[in-house]
Amino acid sequence: MAAQKPGIPKGTRDFGPEQMLKRTYIMDTIKETFKRFGFQPLETPSMENLSVLTGKYGDEGDQLLFRILNSGDYLSKAKPEDIEKGSKHLSSKICDRGLRYDLTVPFARYVVMNRGTLSFPFKRYQMQPVWRADRPQRGRYREFYQCDADVVGTDSLICEAEIVAMINEVFEKFGISDYNIKINNRKILTGITEAIGEAGKETELCVAIDKLDKIGQEKVNEELIERGFSQEAVEKLQGILQIKGSYEEVLSQLKDTLASSETAMKGVEEMAEVFEYVKAFGKDNKFLDFDVTLARGLSYYTGAIFEVKVNNVSIGSVSGGGRYDNLTGVFGLEGMSGVGFSFGVDRLYDVLEELDLYPNNAMESTKVMFVNFDIESQTFCLPHLQTLRNNEISAEIYPQSAKMKKQMTYANNKGIAYVIMAGSNEIAEGKMTLKNMISGEQELLTIEEVVDRLK
Amino acid sequence: MAAQKPGIPKGTRDFGPEQMLKRTYIMDTIKETFKRFGFQPLETPSMENLSVLTGKYGDEGDQLLFRILNSGDYLSKAKPEDIEKGSKHLSSKICDRGLRYDLTVPFARYVVMNRGTLSFPFKRYQMQPVWRADRPQRGRYREFYQCDADVVGTDSLICEAEIVAMINEVFEKFGISDYNIKINNRKILTGITEAIGEAGKETELCVAIDKLDKIGQEKVNEELIERGFSQEAVEKLQGILQIKGSYEEVLSQLKDTLASSETAMKGVEEMAEVFEYVKAFGKDNKFLDFDVTLARGLSYYTGAIFEVKVNNVSIGSVSGGGRYDNLTGVFGLEGMSGVGFSFGVDRLYDVLEELDLYPNNAMESTKVMFVNFDIESQTFCLPHLQTLRNNEISAEIYPQSAKMKKQMTYANNKGIAYVIMAGSNEIAEGKMTLKNMISGEQELLTIEEVVDRLK
Repeated sequence: MAAQKPGIPKGTRDFGPEQMLKRTYIMDTIKETFKRFGFQPLETPSMENLSVLTGKYGDEGDQLLFRILNSGDYLSKAKPEDIEKGSKHLSSKICDRGLRYDLTVPFARYVVMNRGTLSFPFKRYQMQPVWRADRPQRGRYREFYQCDADVVGTDSLICEAEIVAMINEVFEKFGISDYNIKINNRKILTGITEAIGEAGKETELCVAIDKLDKIGQEKVNEELIERGFSQEAVEKLQGILQIKGSYEEVLSQLKDTLASSETAMKGVEEMAEVFEYVKAFGKDNKFLDFDVTLARGLSYYTGAIFEVKVNNVSIGSVSGGGRYDNLTGVFGLEGMSGVGFSFGVDRLYDVLEELDLYPNNAMESTKVMFVNFDIESQTFCLPHLQTLRNNEISAEIYPQSAKMKKQMTYANNKGIAYVIMAGSNEIAEGKMTLKNMISGEQELLTIEEVVDRLK
Repeated sequence: MAAQKPGIPKGTRDFGPEQMLKRTYIMDTIKETFKRFGFQPLETPSMENLSVLTGKYGDEGDQLLFRILNSGDYLSKAKPEDIEKGSKHLSSKICDRGLRYDLTVPFARYVVMNRGTLSFPFKRYQMQPVWRADRPQRGRYREFYQCDADVVGTDSLICEAEIVAMINEVFEKFGISDYNIKINNRKILTGITEAIGEAGKETELCVAIDKLDKIGQEKVNEELIERGFSQEAVEKLQGILQIKGSYEEVLSQLKDTLASSETAMKGVEEMAEVFEYVKAFGKDNKFLDFDVTLARGLSYYTGAIFEVKVNNVSIGSVSGGGRYDNLTGVFGLEGMSGVGFSFGVDRLYDVLEELDLYPNNAMESTKVMFVNFDIESQTFCLPHLQTLRNNEISAEIYPQSAKMKKQMTYANNKGIAYVIMAGSNEIAEGKMTLKNMISGEQELLTIEEVVDRLK
């Protein structure tokens, strides 16, 4: 059999050691913060029944699901007419399961299935890959990680403030200092449609203003007129969308401008309360940007919505979320209010790369390598290697004697910080030479001294 | 639309908070050990091209692959005769990708694709789920984690000794003290066939003696005769398989018994060298069980083979591995010797459960919860909550005021170690009551004192 030239599926990636260290640093930092705020880990299966997945992400989402072929003689359940009806129809006959598309629907499914044993409010975080059969392009993959934290079973706005606090702390740990946490409230958007005399057209409003950044106010106005908004409404809206300023200033302007809408006033009240909590947590408010034009696509949000943008980098939007009032309703459990948000690992990876923010200690692999000169040197080194490991120092020996240059190249490529050399002179003294691979500095030391230096 | 009653696919599992804490403890312990020995992380995509996967696991393995239906109009590539030929044939026309079946083949694929940039010897660990369309039963799942560590690009037997050392250290950390690391060598098994005059029948020998534990010596003898072994060979073999004792004793007996086979002598030499290295690492040899009857099914092993058994528990076999000389050959890269092993997370989970070995600190979720009496108490507590978090203490506040009993039940269910209560008396003093949820002990403290107690 001729050897195959192997490849990997389009839109998927291998993560080698260097990428893994960076990704682990990102995910550990997020995880530590989630835990510090009382969130607990959850993992759900990679595959879900298609009955759980379909119909949850719109028609487009359904088409982007990866479907898993049933095992065994899967065609035996399909009739000839099923095949004639074509791919889309047949897939429902030959596939019962699909790959997870996001972490939200599996979470809702988990909550419903375990409603009897969970303690509410239930605070969970989940960091797992999801799969979408999207056309791959720069920054868009078919397999990628999501890092979600959600609280369900409470409508307390402390949860919203804690999301702000968590984003704040994660970014502080990363050393990202120029970013905005955009925040708005779906009730305010609903209230705007009421206040401008276009009640009930919230979806059209959201779709249009979501494009503000891309196409500008004028084009958005045209679109709204096309979608049946009156000229007067569009003018009123334009005034409202231009409300800007500090959080307090936006609050106070909205209170005046949207006074006619009860829904808007409820949203404004919520936003005021969230702000009070953020202040109570002692968080710096300069990152918080009350942005009336923030809409976010997903339709299940019913309260606060968030979006986090890192400034002065190419892909800025790295996190988002919001409150939903009925996440689990589709699975038969009504009235479960919750709020959650998600970090995009791939985007954070690029941001930290662009800003050169990976700390050196996160990038460390093996700390020290013993050079393997010959059997005598190897025999001398093995017990010392073990001593280092016993002291929690990551250490290895080049597993066979080889040219010095080859061994040093290996250590360099692996980013090893120190090498230890023990030739016959060192062995005679019962010592070893510790070399710092960056400074080039060398010291003749006992193993105890090496431990002291490296620990 | 009527609400669906959701479920999860057969053979898959959700891991809730308690299970996740235990699993994380297991995987972190293993990961720390891998890293301390100089292994670097790798992750490969969940899906691989079927051309990479098929033909690597035998016919049975091919049937257990989960295949992913191609996106879009997948039937357009299938002709009517493809459909007539049935499920097995059609699947190759409508599926290009499948889910990872193990971590070894993707690792081999990665090494071959990155041969030009990797530094050899390449030491990688990989901890990811794999999928098999097996019939689910107790302890057998369709999605489960493997934790593999492999070195490729060296035939140094130090690597074998390091595997023994790693198993030793992982078990020590777990507090498992009654276990055996069974070790044997494929060259010895080959040598046995030579020594008993049945050269070339290594596969038959391995298949038969793999069943020794289950069916006993007599039945194994019958099977061997059926498979064409002579009566004399079977009798000779029986004597060899009864060789037992300390590592040194087995070594010395094999040296005598198998002297006629060069291959066996090479295997014996290797085993002696591995043993020397294990001793050089200062490892206790009492766990090391040189077991001539250990065969291990997988046919790609060519040198040392391992299997780890925890004694006096229901499912004892938790780890295994061995040396292979040509893992990457199938992808066109010849002569890459390597050695690796794998921990089974699910089995270790059950073993630690059965032996009650999970440490308390690994099971801790939130350390402290603030009880939420009313708005006044909440307002008082929020800044203190933040102070605890600033001190790396995981803390939360019950997000709304609710009956005391409800809040305490929540804290109990979540395994929270302490609660803080601040009613009007405490607030007047600027202090709070810290209650130990296990001892019931209560103290009136300032926030600084709370930090001191909990840090």
